Amino acid sequence: MPLVNDCVFCKIIQGAVPSSKVYEDDLVLAFLDIAPFNYGHALIVPKDHHHSITTLPQEYLARMMCLAPKIAVAQMRELKAEGFNLLLNNGRCAGQEVPHCHLHVIPRLVDDAPLLNISHKKYSDTEAMNELAARLQKRVEL
Amino acid sequence: MPLVNDCVFCKIIQGAVPSSKVYEDDLVLAFLDIAPFNYGHALIVPKDHHHSITTLPQEYLARMMCLAPKIAVAQMRELKAEGFNLLLNNGRCAGQEVPHCHLHVIPRLVDDAPLLNISHKKYSDTEAMNELAARLQKRVEL
Repeated sequence: MPLVNDCVFCKIIQGAVPSSKVYEDDLVLAFLDIAPFNYGHALIVPKDHHHSITTLPQEYLARMMCLAPKIAVAQMRELKAEGFNLLLNNGRCAGQEVPHCHLHVIPRLVDDAPLLNISHKKYSDTEAMNELAARLQKRVEL
Repeated sequence: MPLVNDCVFCKIIQGAVPSSKVYEDDLVLAFLDIAPFNYGHALIVPKDHHHSITTLPQEYLARMMCLAPKIAVAQMRELKAEGFNLLLNNGRCAGQEVPHCHLHVIPRLVDDAPLLNISHKKYSDTEAMNELAARLQKRVEL
């Protein structure tokens, strides 16, 4: 799938919109998020326009994930961060704001405010959980 | 790095602790989170004990990330979810609770409560942002 003209991340990849670049190769580009959770918060985007990672070819997925800890290590060393989150929001209800899939690499400091709202559901029993797992397992094909 | 005896995820991989398995191959295991954000919430763990993904070999990183959208598609079809989050918490300050790296695959429904606390910092100006990006870029090596 080529780059598309009305996508801001495609424009960044094409150089038509400026960005603060952290890394670039043949498959991916990484740049700073302009509205960071913490300074240094970076986005890794594939150089191929896919709204959802469910249609993204595996070489892009692999490259994004192999790059993420390299950027996180750079963030931790440069910013005295002690941890990081990788986050990918896929779909509007998951918080995806730009319709070009992207992986957040967010450096975390010891005294940060919580990033996540902790709220847990509970399975009625182990059998219900195993039954759902079996249904999912049938659908998963690598 | 081999599996270790006092790690609950290593015990799950070894079969010494039960789990609701969603997928397994030579490199990774996926099973349901026992305290899910939504039903079907799965964890992908490498079959190699690393506290941090910064030391995890690339074949594991690639396999985890290529598997994640397959599980997410299964979740969406099975649970009528309309999106998903991939989340990896690395380090205690990032919310990592089990010291064996793991990738959350969280199905999301349209009427979900927010998963994230939205709170953004602001760079003082573009120059400051570009300067930080340049410092990070020097440290990133793929």
